[in-house]
Amino acid sequence: MPSLHPAGGIVNHSNKTEFSLSDEQRIDWLCLIRSENVGPRTFRALMHRFGDARTALKVLPELARRGGAARFTRVHPRADAEREIAAAARLGIKYVAVGETDYPLRLQAIDDPPPLLAVRGKHERLAAPIVALVGSRNASAAGIKFASRMARALGEVGFVIVSGLARGIDAAAHRASVATGTVAVLAGGHDRIYPPEHDALLDDILAEGVAVSEMPLGWEPRAPDFPRRNRLISGLAAGVLIVEAAKRSGSLITARLALEQGREVFAVPGSPLDPRAEGTNGLLKQGATLVTDVTDIISVLEPILGRPIEPVLDEPPLVTTGESGPHGARERVISLLGPTPAGIDDLIRLSGLPPAFVRMTVLELEIAGRVGRRDGGLVALL
Amino acid sequence: MPSLHPAGGIVNHSNKTEFSLSDEQRIDWLCLIRSENVGPRTFRALMHRFGDARTALKVLPELARRGGAARFTRVHPRADAEREIAAAARLGIKYVAVGETDYPLRLQAIDDPPPLLAVRGKHERLAAPIVALVGSRNASAAGIKFASRMARALGEVGFVIVSGLARGIDAAAHRASVATGTVAVLAGGHDRIYPPEHDALLDDILAEGVAVSEMPLGWEPRAPDFPRRNRLISGLAAGVLIVEAAKRSGSLITARLALEQGREVFAVPGSPLDPRAEGTNGLLKQGATLVTDVTDIISVLEPILGRPIEPVLDEPPLVTTGESGPHGARERVISLLGPTPAGIDDLIRLSGLPPAFVRMTVLELEIAGRVGRRDGGLVALL
Repeated sequence: MPSLHPAGGIVNHSNKTEFSLSDEQRIDWLCLIRSENVGPRTFRALMHRFGDARTALKVLPELARRGGAARFTRVHPRADAEREIAAAARLGIKYVAVGETDYPLRLQAIDDPPPLLAVRGKHERLAAPIVALVGSRNASAAGIKFASRMARALGEVGFVIVSGLARGIDAAAHRASVATGTVAVLAGGHDRIYPPEHDALLDDILAEGVAVSEMPLGWEPRAPDFPRRNRLISGLAAGVLIVEAAKRSGSLITARLALEQGREVFAVPGSPLDPRAEGTNGLLKQGATLVTDVTDIISVLEPILGRPIEPVLDEPPLVTTGESGPHGARERVISLLGPTPAGIDDLIRLSGLPPAFVRMTVLELEIAGRVGRRDGGLVALL
Repeated sequence: MPSLHPAGGIVNHSNKTEFSLSDEQRIDWLCLIRSENVGPRTFRALMHRFGDARTALKVLPELARRGGAARFTRVHPRADAEREIAAAARLGIKYVAVGETDYPLRLQAIDDPPPLLAVRGKHERLAAPIVALVGSRNASAAGIKFASRMARALGEVGFVIVSGLARGIDAAAHRASVATGTVAVLAGGHDRIYPPEHDALLDDILAEGVAVSEMPLGWEPRAPDFPRRNRLISGLAAGVLIVEAAKRSGSLITARLALEQGREVFAVPGSPLDPRAEGTNGLLKQGATLVTDVTDIISVLEPILGRPIEPVLDEPPLVTTGESGPHGARERVISLLGPTPAGIDDLIRLSGLPPAFVRMTVLELEIAGRVGRRDGGLVALL
C-alpha cells in the first residue's frame, strides 16, 4: 500500500521503494541539511511543512527572523553542495537519501536518520543483517581476542559487523570481519579518518565492506561528533554487542541509543575488579543479554531478522492555514518552553493555541537556533 | 496456632517452638537416622507413619523384610548412639532436633532437613540472617580478593557467612568473616575436618562462629558427602553467592540446590575467556542476580529477611488401616517404579490401590534399600 512520502515521492511499505531523488533534488537536500540549525529532525519537520527541500530553503531566512534569530540563518550555498557531491564522486562516494532503495531500512526507522548518508564501498552490505560490535579503545588483550572471535563467528553465519573504526575493540571487530563484510561509521568526513593510523584498515574494510558518514567532506571530527555518530552504529544494527566498557564511556552511549532505538543490547561480562568491565556489568544488571558465546547473540537475533522492519512513521500532514496566531501567541509558546524538554502536544494543550501555529512557531525557533529537538518529539530551549 | 509436629511435640508457628526432645528421645532419633537405608526423607515418612522414633525402630526389620531386603536391616545400636552423644558432648557438640528452638528455621523448611544437626560453637549465629558464599577450590587471586571483600562487607551489615570450609573461595569467605560470625558446614564428622590443614581455620571460626554436621562423629567424608552437604549450605542461607565456578563444579550443585529450595542465587561475572567464570556466567544466563557490589545482594535480601520464614509443611496424617492390599498389589507398585523418579500420587493413581497401602509399600521398599527418595516427593528404584 503506497503512501505519500514527506519528500513527495512514493514509498511502498513492502520494504521496496520506488522513491528516488533527481540530481537537483539531491543538491537541494544537501543544501538544506548542511544549513545552519538544521539537523535531521528539523529537516524532517521542514519537509513535512513545506513539501520539498527547495521550498524549505527559500523560507529558511524568514523562519529564522520570525523565530528571533539575531542575524539571518546561513543557508548552505548551492555551489558548495555541488562541489561536495562532485568531490565525493571522485572518491566513489554516493549520497543516498532517506526513502531511496539503497538507504538502510533499519537506520531509516530511527527517530533522526541522516537525510543523506554518504556511502563508500560495497553498498549492498548495508542490506544484510547487521550486528554492531563496540567497546573500549583502551581494550585488554582478552577483550581484543574475544571481540575478534565474535566478529569472525558472526561473519561466518552471515552477519555484517558495524563499528566505529576506533582503536581497541572497534578495530579488532573490523579486522576480524574484513573478509565477510564490515561497516565503518565515521564521525567526520570520508576524507578525515580518525584515528589517522586507521587509513590502511579502512582500505582493507572497503575491499568487501563499506564506510558511511553523515558529515561533510573535509569535516574534522570533534568530541560531540562521536556520540552523534554512535546513533548510526546502533541504528544500522539489529543488535549491539558491547565487549568492554568503562563507566561513562562512549560504548555506553551507543548502548543507551540502541535501547532508545529498540535494538537488542548484548554485553560481555567481566570481573568486578576489572574497570573495563564496569560498564558491561552495569548493562547486564540493567537487563542486557549476557554473551559468552556467539550463539547467545544468534538465538536472540534470528527471530527478529525474520520480522519486517518497522516502517518510517509519517507524521500526519500539517494544516497549512492558521499560522499567524493571536497577538502575544508566539510569546505564550516561548514562555512554555524551557531547558527541560517538553512535548509539542503539551505546548498545544497548555497554550490553547491552534496546533498548526504552535508547530510552526517551534520550527521557526529551531531554525533561529533557539530551540533544539530531543528524542520522542520533545523540544527544549537551548 | 500450634499444630501437631511429626514427632508428636507441639510446634508454634510464630517461629518459637516449645517442642523439645528428652534425652531418651534424642537417642531414639539418632538410632533411627543412623540406621541402614534411613535418610532424612525416610526419617520423616517413618515419623509420620509411626508417630515416634522408638516405634519406628522396632518395626524397621519387619518393614525391610516386607520390602524384600535380602537380609535384616541393620538397626543402629543404642549403645553406639549413646557413645556418639557422649563423645560429641566432650567436644562441646550438641545434637539439635528438627522442631527444637535452636534448629535453624530456614534449614527446617527444606525438603530434607537433617533430623538431628550436630552443632559446635556459637549456636546463636544460626538464628542470624545468613548468606552462603561458595566457589572454586582452585580460585584466582581476584576471586579470593572479591570473596573476602564481599564476606567482610556482608558481615559488617549483620549477615553471617556460611560456607563449606573448602580451599579457595570457601576459606577466603570464612576468614573474612571470622570476627562477625561464620558457619562451616562439614561434609564429615566434627572430628574429621577436610581438608586437614583447615583445622586451625576451624578453630578461628569457632571463636565467634559455628560448625555444623549431619554426619556421625568419626565419619571420614567421601565424594558423595560433599554434594549432600551442599544442600545444608544453601538451606541455612537466605541467598547463595557463587564467586567463581567452573563447569560441572560443586558450587553449581549448591546453586541448583539453592534454586530448588527457593533461595536467591547470586553470581559474580567474569571474562568468557576465564574457565573459572564459565559456571557463574552460566548461572547469570539462567537468571541469577549479577553481583559486583555488596549492595546487589543486600537490596535483594533485605525485603526477604523481613518476611516470616515458610514453616515446615506437615504432610497430612496417614490412614493407618488398609496396609495389606489385594493379592499381587505389592508387585503392581514395584512394576510401576523404575530408575526415573515417579510421584507417589501417580503410583496411587496408576495402581488403583488404596493410598495408605501404596505409601506403606514405598516405605518398606525404602527401608529394604530398594527405593530412594528424590526431591519433590518423588521415588525411584535404586
